[in-house]
Amino acid sequence: MNGETKLKAAVLGASGYTGAETVRLLSGHPRVDAVAATGNSLAGKRLSEIFPHLAGPTDLPVVKAENIDWSDIDVAFGCLPHGTSQDLIETLPHHVRVVDLSADYRLRDAALYASTYGRPHLNPARTADVKYGLSEWRGAELEGEPLVACPGCYPTASLLALLPIISLIDSDSIIIDAKSGVSGAGRGLKEGNLFSEAAEGAHAYGVGQHRHAPEIEQELNLQAGRSDIGVTFTPHLIPMTRGELVTCHVRGDVDQIQTALEAKYANAPFVTVLPLGSPPPDTRHVRGTNNCRIAVYPDRVKGRVIVIAVIDNLVKGSSGQAIQNLNLMMGWDETLGLSGLQALFP
Amino acid sequence: MNGETKLKAAVLGASGYTGAETVRLLSGHPRVDAVAATGNSLAGKRLSEIFPHLAGPTDLPVVKAENIDWSDIDVAFGCLPHGTSQDLIETLPHHVRVVDLSADYRLRDAALYASTYGRPHLNPARTADVKYGLSEWRGAELEGEPLVACPGCYPTASLLALLPIISLIDSDSIIIDAKSGVSGAGRGLKEGNLFSEAAEGAHAYGVGQHRHAPEIEQELNLQAGRSDIGVTFTPHLIPMTRGELVTCHVRGDVDQIQTALEAKYANAPFVTVLPLGSPPPDTRHVRGTNNCRIAVYPDRVKGRVIVIAVIDNLVKGSSGQAIQNLNLMMGWDETLGLSGLQALFP
Amino acid sequence: MNGETKLKAAVLGASGYTGAETVRLLSGHPRVDAVAATGNSLAGKRLSEIFPHLAGPTDLPVVKAENIDWSDIDVAFGCLPHGTSQDLIETLPHHVRVVDLSADYRLRDAALYASTYGRPHLNPARTADVKYGLSEWRGAELEGEPLVACPGCYPTASLLALLPIISLIDSDSIIIDAKSGVSGAGRGLKEGNLFSEAAEGAHAYGVGQHRHAPEIEQELNLQAGRSDIGVTFTPHLIPMTRGELVTCHVRGDVDQIQTALEAKYANAPFVTVLPLGSPPPDTRHVRGTNNCRIAVYPDRVKGRVIVIAVIDNLVKGSSGQAIQNLNLMMGWDETLGLSGLQALFP
Amino acid sequence: MNGETKLKAAVLGASGYTGAETVRLLSGHPRVDAVAATGNSLAGKRLSEIFPHLAGPTDLPVVKAENIDWSDIDVAFGCLPHGTSQDLIETLPHHVRVVDLSADYRLRDAALYASTYGRPHLNPARTADVKYGLSEWRGAELEGEPLVACPGCYPTASLLALLPIISLIDSDSIIIDAKSGVSGAGRGLKEGNLFSEAAEGAHAYGVGQHRHAPEIEQELNLQAGRSDIGVTFTPHLIPMTRGELVTCHVRGDVDQIQTALEAKYANAPFVTVLPLGSPPPDTRHVRGTNNCRIAVYPDRVKGRVIVIAVIDNLVKGSSGQAIQNLNLMMGWDETLGLSGLQALFP
Repeated sequence: MNGETKLKAAVLGASGYTGAETVRLLSGHPRVDAVAATGNSLAGKRLSEIFPHLAGPTDLPVVKAENIDWSDIDVAFGCLPHGTSQDLIETLPHHVRVVDLSADYRLRDAALYASTYGRPHLNPARTADVKYGLSEWRGAELEGEPLVACPGCYPTASLLALLPIISLIDSDSIIIDAKSGVSGAGRGLKEGNLFSEAAEGAHAYGVGQHRHAPEIEQELNLQAGRSDIGVTFTPHLIPMTRGELVTCHVRGDVDQIQTALEAKYANAPFVTVLPLGSPPPDTRHVRGTNNCRIAVYPDRVKGRVIVIAVIDNLVKGSSGQAIQNLNLMMGWDETLGLSGLQALFP
Repeated sequence: MNGETKLKAAVLGASGYTGAETVRLLSGHPRVDAVAATGNSLAGKRLSEIFPHLAGPTDLPVVKAENIDWSDIDVAFGCLPHGTSQDLIETLPHHVRVVDLSADYRLRDAALYASTYGRPHLNPARTADVKYGLSEWRGAELEGEPLVACPGCYPTASLLALLPIISLIDSDSIIIDAKSGVSGAGRGLKEGNLFSEAAEGAHAYGVGQHRHAPEIEQELNLQAGRSDIGVTFTPHLIPMTRGELVTCHVRGDVDQIQTALEAKYANAPFVTVLPLGSPPPDTRHVRGTNNCRIAVYPDRVKGRVIVIAVIDNLVKGSSGQAIQNLNLMMGWDETLGLSGLQALFP
Repeated sequence: MNGETKLKAAVLGASGYTGAETVRLLSGHPRVDAVAATGNSLAGKRLSEIFPHLAGPTDLPVVKAENIDWSDIDVAFGCLPHGTSQDLIETLPHHVRVVDLSADYRLRDAALYASTYGRPHLNPARTADVKYGLSEWRGAELEGEPLVACPGCYPTASLLALLPIISLIDSDSIIIDAKSGVSGAGRGLKEGNLFSEAAEGAHAYGVGQHRHAPEIEQELNLQAGRSDIGVTFTPHLIPMTRGELVTCHVRGDVDQIQTALEAKYANAPFVTVLPLGSPPPDTRHVRGTNNCRIAVYPDRVKGRVIVIAVIDNLVKGSSGQAIQNLNLMMGWDETLGLSGLQALFP
Repeated sequence: MNGETKLKAAVLGASGYTGAETVRLLSGHPRVDAVAATGNSLAGKRLSEIFPHLAGPTDLPVVKAENIDWSDIDVAFGCLPHGTSQDLIETLPHHVRVVDLSADYRLRDAALYASTYGRPHLNPARTADVKYGLSEWRGAELEGEPLVACPGCYPTASLLALLPIISLIDSDSIIIDAKSGVSGAGRGLKEGNLFSEAAEGAHAYGVGQHRHAPEIEQELNLQAGRSDIGVTFTPHLIPMTRGELVTCHVRGDVDQIQTALEAKYANAPFVTVLPLGSPPPDTRHVRGTNNCRIAVYPDRVKGRVIVIAVIDNLVKGSSGQAIQNLNLMMGWDETLGLSGLQALFP
């Protein structure tokens, strides 16, 4: 890469987990430098005071977003909560490409956004048009895009498993039972996320009403050319930090499903479809990587199939996929900065 | 209880977790004394050498089963692996009542037992007759029984949730997605149960072929007066020690389901049906107790309902229910020795 | 206990962990009923809404302290933060006995209190006089006391190990290296106590300046008849919820130390001195109980000895010892309400 | 590195954690390829069957050591248990450089080896001569060496903290209180390492007799030009997978100690001495990296100082330092293959 100019990136909301993870991953990217990190309440500190693991070459001062000189920035990673994210993104100058990790530009239908997230969208026309950055599905389409919306962590795992088979299964009986580590809840201070209350136990949450369900349905319907597919989506919080596992209960033929998944991801660098009969994939096997592993199992009840996918919610489920999307937006090899990541085990 | 003679109990297989838990719980029982503990490889040690938390009044020497003087024993708790359990139980003198925690007498159909557990049953006629001790469903029927088979941990939670509503739901689309702590795997030495390999991750196991599925189906069919109900049962191992959570995805009417569950368990001392709209039950809230908590949620997809149940796999899922069953066999108050247990939180 | 009137207890600060644990433990006490629970921000809720494991007979409405009718209360358990605790305790009518779990009445020297806790004491004369409730050391002295100060969790474990041997060891080279579970930090919302930041790691804190050191020194000096003993006290936060382990590095003779400890606690119901050569005590073996286990080891360096003590920080380290102290204040058997607690293992 | 020939490495004992970690780390090394992996009981499997996270380019067949064609191997990483390690290493042809991670060549005194490890050394003359590869202390001395012994995990952290200050402190009162994650115990199957028995608790082990103490003393004495320094070394097992923290209690002057540590490691790429007054280092901040962080604290007792060091036991404490040592043996930049590692947080 000698002689090439690197892109200059700003990470918006660097004091949260996805912000910190984006900074961490960018430090290994050959064509992008993280040069600015924003935060509100923590502005004035250095990133390494908030996240000591970012000491050294990855360290940056945290500044308020309004103090960034945007003329010097090529790309912004939006790691802010929904709402706050669009409030800032809509003010950015046009030359700044944006990879948004929030929910703000994922739903094409602004009315659905408003009912799901409890506030009207600032720019309904734009959200209707923004590309939904499930990297393996949009690929080259993302090249040149000014703004890409990164999928939620649950939709990433769920859609990677279900999109290739939506035409092969009974789309009216899809059940997604999901399990997530606590880092998925972010760095917000809630009793339920304290070690003493999250360790040694498990519970469902958002049962029947989680915000990721409409996002999953939007993409399944789009792929199926329908508008009425509804999914049951039941997430659970389990006592681990990173990792997400989705167990999809569907009806169809196990061999057709396996074949379709293998065909779709034959050349995908980050998605592995395990051979039939493999031991079930474990979130440990993808921890710290941008990988997704998918496996298919016949149920003992004829005609039912279980499709399981695992990801690291902070990498493929957010910051890693965001970088993969930037690579695609720039027309680069999609693995830049991500191919060297190895799962930490044990 | 002054003046009364206490029952003398032997715990068979006291060097495993359910054996140790049975000893622990019996120490608080007003009408039963644990007087003998068997073990093979550890015979000759004291229980407190294997399990230091059992030092003190609960301590016992571990002896080989063949060295027990059965004339002195009133009741035996079978805490052995399946197979080994029937091998011993079939040799016991008739005056010894048996509460078996293994799988050996749960399936009425000896052929199904053989295909599920990989060996023929020693006593097909007996297993066809033995009462299946899901305490809240057999209750007074257990009085006077010489042998009761305690349900598996997953069937306990699943059946408590599903039996009361089997006639109200589409019995051909039942999906049970279960999550268990690692103690459910017992004390056997396997790499996957090492801390370094079980912490910080999650995976499914036994997908489509877990041995608890036939047991669940047997009881659902019996209750429904059918023989062809099949269930999808997908268990997951998650990084906690105790606790089990089953998420049942069913089709039916949420209010009918809530009403049926409330009616069934209105007077059950150990089963609580949470009011509609409650936060989801957490395994922490029942840890160390014989309690089961059940909650019902409408799905966002019309006509689908999520029923969640949590138990402590080592108490209500095994040793606690075993004691509850002994109480019922003796015609005692079913809460004896169990009512004082309080969930340890945090 | 038939026919006897039970004491009526108020738990002040029931929305924290020591408050909840006090309510939980009192529910098994034969001569005390928890009848009131106070909380400020959570007043108006029921205790079971904050702590679902307290649903049922242990449930209580949370009220503001100013709304308690004290004429109806016999004893108050102070489970408030230091400072807040004395502010309330100093206003209570004289007939209310107080067991204070905070740090407010532990230090006899009000100047030391002020420098350690950053505020002047409201009642210096009183704190100079209040009995320091390390139960095994004050015992019958507590009978009839109107107010007893319960030791901190670290001082409890450290002093149980060191007080019996202070005259046998080099009192100028005592080093206490302590490890605590996260529940010791309480329910306060800090990033460092989030599951994602406390799991899978360990760190020291308060190095060279923890507030429990002056408390430990006060009692060691008192016992030794000196005033200049200083201790090195270095606590660590480790990824477990309950449990505290102190490793005391001292100089002395291992047999003398073992003998002194055994002699002191020969009849103590809650303190066990393990025989020389025992496997090291584990916090799991006392989890959920009021027990302390102590073990002594010769070092490979001649003349050095390691004394290890383990407790459950929320029981013997706070709420359990508080109840033990109330028993002593009332002249009752000190084990009332505590003898049935069994360690939860695994 | 284009055009250069890479070294070919064999990993001996690839079915344990340090073996797997060596394979993982080598996959990012620009001048070394892992081309062979040995194992006994698992020979015939692929590495990815044992460690699914090693699927892909890092995968290798596991073969018996006797089936390796050594003419094709440049370097061997010994990841075997002590004893087994020397049995194999002593048979290797001379052209094979060896980096041994076991304890077999760490102690110069074969008699001390025999008494510590319970068997005579095969090659006493060799062990007296082998370089002890604490990388930051041997550095260029390692260039050209045919065999280097990598320090144990505890000695690595302890010596990095103590060697630079041994002349500044009272060398007769050194106390090292250490805490380790469970992966330090390896992949061996013992009840105490099961998740259910290692989670939610802590205990000391090897008190007064751990095998790493002689190793620490050997190096301290060598550096101090003495032979009689003895250390108290008390390790603890805590419920995390990776990470090691040593708390060194010493007597000396805090400023002198800080200055000496800063001076020693001013140019060390992997060792960071935190400024005085920093928050205590956390094992999370070095997890997955070859880094060591050291911090110094004045005690409240005058003249006492606490020096804390944290490492990842599987990286700087074993496989990472092994690769650093190979780099030094080859005269390469010591950071090759290690500089890109980033701590995984949260």
